[in-house]
Amino acid sequence: MNGTIPGPTIVLDEGDIVEFTIVNKGTVTHGASIHAAYTQTSKYLGKIEAGKSKSLLFKVSYPGVYMYHCAPGGHAIPMHVIYGQYGMIVVKPKKKYKLETILNKPPDVEIFLNQHEFYSNGKDAIESKPLYTAFNGKLFRYVENPIKAKPGDYVRIYYLNVGPNQTATFHIVGIIWDFAYWQGNPDMVYPGGQSVLAGPTDSWVVEFRVPPDEGAYLMLNHAVGPTDRGAIGLLVCDDSAQTPVTVIGDGPKYSQEELNTLKSKVTRVISPFEPGSPDVDPVAYYGPETGEVTVKIIGNSFYPKSIVIAEGTKVKWVNEDVFSYMEGEFAGIHNVTSYEGIAEPFSSPLLAHTESFTFTFNKEGDYKYMCTPHPYMKGTVSVKDMGGRSTAGPSKIGLGFLITLLFLVTFQLVVTVYNRRKKAE
Amino acid sequence: MNGTIPGPTIVLDEGDIVEFTIVNKGTVTHGASIHAAYTQTSKYLGKIEAGKSKSLLFKVSYPGVYMYHCAPGGHAIPMHVIYGQYGMIVVKPKKKYKLETILNKPPDVEIFLNQHEFYSNGKDAIESKPLYTAFNGKLFRYVENPIKAKPGDYVRIYYLNVGPNQTATFHIVGIIWDFAYWQGNPDMVYPGGQSVLAGPTDSWVVEFRVPPDEGAYLMLNHAVGPTDRGAIGLLVCDDSAQTPVTVIGDGPKYSQEELNTLKSKVTRVISPFEPGSPDVDPVAYYGPETGEVTVKIIGNSFYPKSIVIAEGTKVKWVNEDVFSYMEGEFAGIHNVTSYEGIAEPFSSPLLAHTESFTFTFNKEGDYKYMCTPHPYMKGTVSVKDMGGRSTAGPSKIGLGFLITLLFLVTFQLVVTVYNRRKKAE
Amino acid sequence: MNGTIPGPTIVLDEGDIVEFTIVNKGTVTHGASIHAAYTQTSKYLGKIEAGKSKSLLFKVSYPGVYMYHCAPGGHAIPMHVIYGQYGMIVVKPKKKYKLETILNKPPDVEIFLNQHEFYSNGKDAIESKPLYTAFNGKLFRYVENPIKAKPGDYVRIYYLNVGPNQTATFHIVGIIWDFAYWQGNPDMVYPGGQSVLAGPTDSWVVEFRVPPDEGAYLMLNHAVGPTDRGAIGLLVCDDSAQTPVTVIGDGPKYSQEELNTLKSKVTRVISPFEPGSPDVDPVAYYGPETGEVTVKIIGNSFYPKSIVIAEGTKVKWVNEDVFSYMEGEFAGIHNVTSYEGIAEPFSSPLLAHTESFTFTFNKEGDYKYMCTPHPYMKGTVSVKDMGGRSTAGPSKIGLGFLITLLFLVTFQLVVTVYNRRKKAE
Repeated sequence: MNGTIPGPTIVLDEGDIVEFTIVNKGTVTHGASIHAAYTQTSKYLGKIEAGKSKSLLFKVSYPGVYMYHCAPGGHAIPMHVIYGQYGMIVVKPKKKYKLETILNKPPDVEIFLNQHEFYSNGKDAIESKPLYTAFNGKLFRYVENPIKAKPGDYVRIYYLNVGPNQTATFHIVGIIWDFAYWQGNPDMVYPGGQSVLAGPTDSWVVEFRVPPDEGAYLMLNHAVGPTDRGAIGLLVCDDSAQTPVTVIGDGPKYSQEELNTLKSKVTRVISPFEPGSPDVDPVAYYGPETGEVTVKIIGNSFYPKSIVIAEGTKVKWVNEDVFSYMEGEFAGIHNVTSYEGIAEPFSSPLLAHTESFTFTFNKEGDYKYMCTPHPYMKGTVSVKDMGGRSTAGPSKIGLGFLITLLFLVTFQLVVTVYNRRKKAE
Repeated sequence: MNGTIPGPTIVLDEGDIVEFTIVNKGTVTHGASIHAAYTQTSKYLGKIEAGKSKSLLFKVSYPGVYMYHCAPGGHAIPMHVIYGQYGMIVVKPKKKYKLETILNKPPDVEIFLNQHEFYSNGKDAIESKPLYTAFNGKLFRYVENPIKAKPGDYVRIYYLNVGPNQTATFHIVGIIWDFAYWQGNPDMVYPGGQSVLAGPTDSWVVEFRVPPDEGAYLMLNHAVGPTDRGAIGLLVCDDSAQTPVTVIGDGPKYSQEELNTLKSKVTRVISPFEPGSPDVDPVAYYGPETGEVTVKIIGNSFYPKSIVIAEGTKVKWVNEDVFSYMEGEFAGIHNVTSYEGIAEPFSSPLLAHTESFTFTFNKEGDYKYMCTPHPYMKGTVSVKDMGGRSTAGPSKIGLGFLITLLFLVTFQLVVTVYNRRKKAE
Repeated sequence: MNGTIPGPTIVLDEGDIVEFTIVNKGTVTHGASIHAAYTQTSKYLGKIEAGKSKSLLFKVSYPGVYMYHCAPGGHAIPMHVIYGQYGMIVVKPKKKYKLETILNKPPDVEIFLNQHEFYSNGKDAIESKPLYTAFNGKLFRYVENPIKAKPGDYVRIYYLNVGPNQTATFHIVGIIWDFAYWQGNPDMVYPGGQSVLAGPTDSWVVEFRVPPDEGAYLMLNHAVGPTDRGAIGLLVCDDSAQTPVTVIGDGPKYSQEELNTLKSKVTRVISPFEPGSPDVDPVAYYGPETGEVTVKIIGNSFYPKSIVIAEGTKVKWVNEDVFSYMEGEFAGIHNVTSYEGIAEPFSSPLLAHTESFTFTFNKEGDYKYMCTPHPYMKGTVSVKDMGGRSTAGPSKIGLGFLITLLFLVTFQLVVTVYNRRKKAE
């Protein structure tokens, strides 16, 4: 959203009247679910066609930390969430948080912290197996560029577990909270505590004072397996820190020049929707003993994305996407159609859940295919004469470490706050 | 239970004296764990042999939303829970919920909502990888038949995350709760909030008023990967809705005629215990290079359930079920015995955890085998002469979309509430 | 720690001044994170080289149930936690827990209960797929040796979900809590409830009275799949029980003689770092059709650990460990170097995340290799002439059921409590 993952962090005051306008600059239908809004968001923002825009006017009456995300309807809701269309809205309470009352001053350090997951294929996305995790859009972002605070500083963190799949326990090494506030509600105060537990879309405000000892305080999800994939940051206590400071939750934004530099250093290409580098989307080899190979269509991608088979092998594509109600981006309806290397062209009808298409490959060659309703979904089949020795793997070579999320930069969010001020644009 | 998944929803009043009678109409031992009962359930209801019945008399002193489930002892407890033997008990508090006090009226819409998971094999069941998820027993049940409410209606949801494995964040698009009550306890009030977090057997009562805007409010687990497998429903705000209304949590019950119609439309057969359709339980092919194939015995099923191997290949069955204490349905003790296609019959001794049985298949043919203590557990081995080309996959063809849970319709629950009224039977 | 998993349970009183001294008796760098300490633990205890020791003096001002664990910095933190270096610290509150006030007596039964996970390889560790789970260090420990209480006894459980990955709902069959206290804080009281939800490092104190009925009350995580792997125990109500009693949370400690007896009965060898029994770390076979085999380096282990390939096959090792910041035990930097069976020796440079090393095996033979910076990481490659029939699997044979955690017995914890008493040593 607005070209970043997560999208812009939106900060409102309890009681504000706010107008959200979504401008769909992409090629597929988008929409929005705004958790801070107690109203029919799907009616007003549910399905915005490419090139169109829609608005919702509402009052934010409940203080807290909320998620917003794309919601074009049906199966496209989880898909657009999984693949990066989300962000944080904070409705600051009229009532002061308890530590602010006690200390009688605003926080010295305010951090808006989105924790979220990246997936390299639809099967992993459905099965909650992230390839990477992050705070505010970038692996190890605050290890590379630590957030700095002075000894004794009052810190408030607006923590949102975006998910979209995993439950997390947020912890900072060396810190016991003064207070944690469930979903950021100042009336739901938890005293003390080493951690807070949050499922996807759950949120907390945590508050504490920085201990007198200079050095690094590690912020992380204490579920250490997923954490090790990137959702780690440093809060560094440093006498020379410049506070007050605010760290917003928007993902990093790159200039075209920075993007070019990044691309020149790429060691791995990741896309949920088409074959990335072979170490991310490994080619699956099937020997001549294999009567039939099953390729799953799941989470708007093929699994495995690339296969090598012997002449004469049957390949069966099965639609494992279940949510075929409501038409959001055509719901979970898919097909397979060859578009390159067409020694033997093939094309299936539209497939609903459990429906399948089988094709027997009798001619050597490299085939590329796609899904017509979702043309970003792509896969390959290499057919070998395995009488002799298989000669070679596919020629695709990984190019640094770049995540390509195709849905990414395709819509713009305009937020207008009436009677008060304009917060984000 | 009583032929549905979930079993009957039981609603009691705080202070009721209640008698549970379990009648085991099945062929294996059953039992019950009643989370609303502060007493020795395992002693009185722990192990009920086929054809027998047992009763427990107790007083419900703690208000809340509880799970009950089959509990025949030992390894059979998780197995019977995983495969569908559960339901919800609500103990309504004497004290009014806060919103009922504020609005000074009972809810217009009361929804008893079980969220639960379906597994297609024991390995996935143990590893928390559901094939499907559901509200009240059926994928997309309330998308197909939405729950209807009028604008401004007071809604109360008794939400139970049955699991049996995944933690979930329950959310309704467009709604911020007025109040959430932890485990349905009126003394544990959470104000506001976009979601509630629940692990397996955790529960909440959530209350809110329907916004004035007509249209659809999507109810879901915000862990979107698993949600996309079926646990999605609609609460539709509609001026013409007939309220007050109560939606019970029982799974759908089908007449024999409806079942016949369903069966005629089946596109996929799923059973955790024997090979289903090949797209659910894909055949695993092993080339002649394979020295040894390992088949796991896990979650009361074989994995993979169907294998194709070359003549001369060794197959090793390893018992991965760990819980061999207590004798519930013979605990996690298994064996393998061929019963069809017996060019070479084979039979193992009983295997405890980590114990294995190895057999070398030297003769072409199709073999079927089972576990003697759990005769519903079945698997197949196809032995091919792979000097030449493997000729064909297995002949089994998927037939709709029918979930066969073998344990399902095998016991009856009779609940008697003394001094007051009879709620469920 | 001190030779057990979990390490010693440390019980302090709110307000104590305490000194932790870590003596590293191992061969790699260790450290400590002490969640009960509101201070810079990483500065004082963060990186303790082999043979060295370090101390931290601090005051425990916040009552509750906390985790402590090894924390040598960077990628080594999650690794050392995953592989067993953790324990529980309880800071007992000055204020009495509510049930103690009501009953006006201390608990009759005090249980310190660590719930934790064991992993057999790094990939499963990162992906949250435990092979086993346990209470206090041993599968089914309290099924084999139940904890005993008299009818009516007042029970307090200090429950810590160590994780390190899975969220759990702690439940006791037949029990509704009188009170649960979030993270053991006496000011955060939850009345009633069938369960408590805890992510990794989350904790609760739960209190209840044992019902009058003699018999067994099953303690478990109600996420039944993982529970079935070992985290189950019994609290047995028995008129003849000797109370008051305290059950500490330390893992079992074996004498050399007991260890020898255990080893003589081993049926399975498990090590996250090198090939264990083939039923735990199954050999992966690749036919001659396979152009390239990918071996992942993940969670400080190789995956698959043992492969069989045809002459001429390329093997590509890819470093999937991401956390290469901070130098804790050299961070997630790895290589591969052959050390045995060196018909064709091979050795890679150091590999950072996404970097890979490819080697084509042209000569038949059995190769063993390791990671130079982490010499406990080991793998094997068997190269076969697959023109003919693959002759045999690897010769390694499983030997009762022993978990080898290499990091285990390598450091000693000394805790000194000033002004009061010495609690653990």
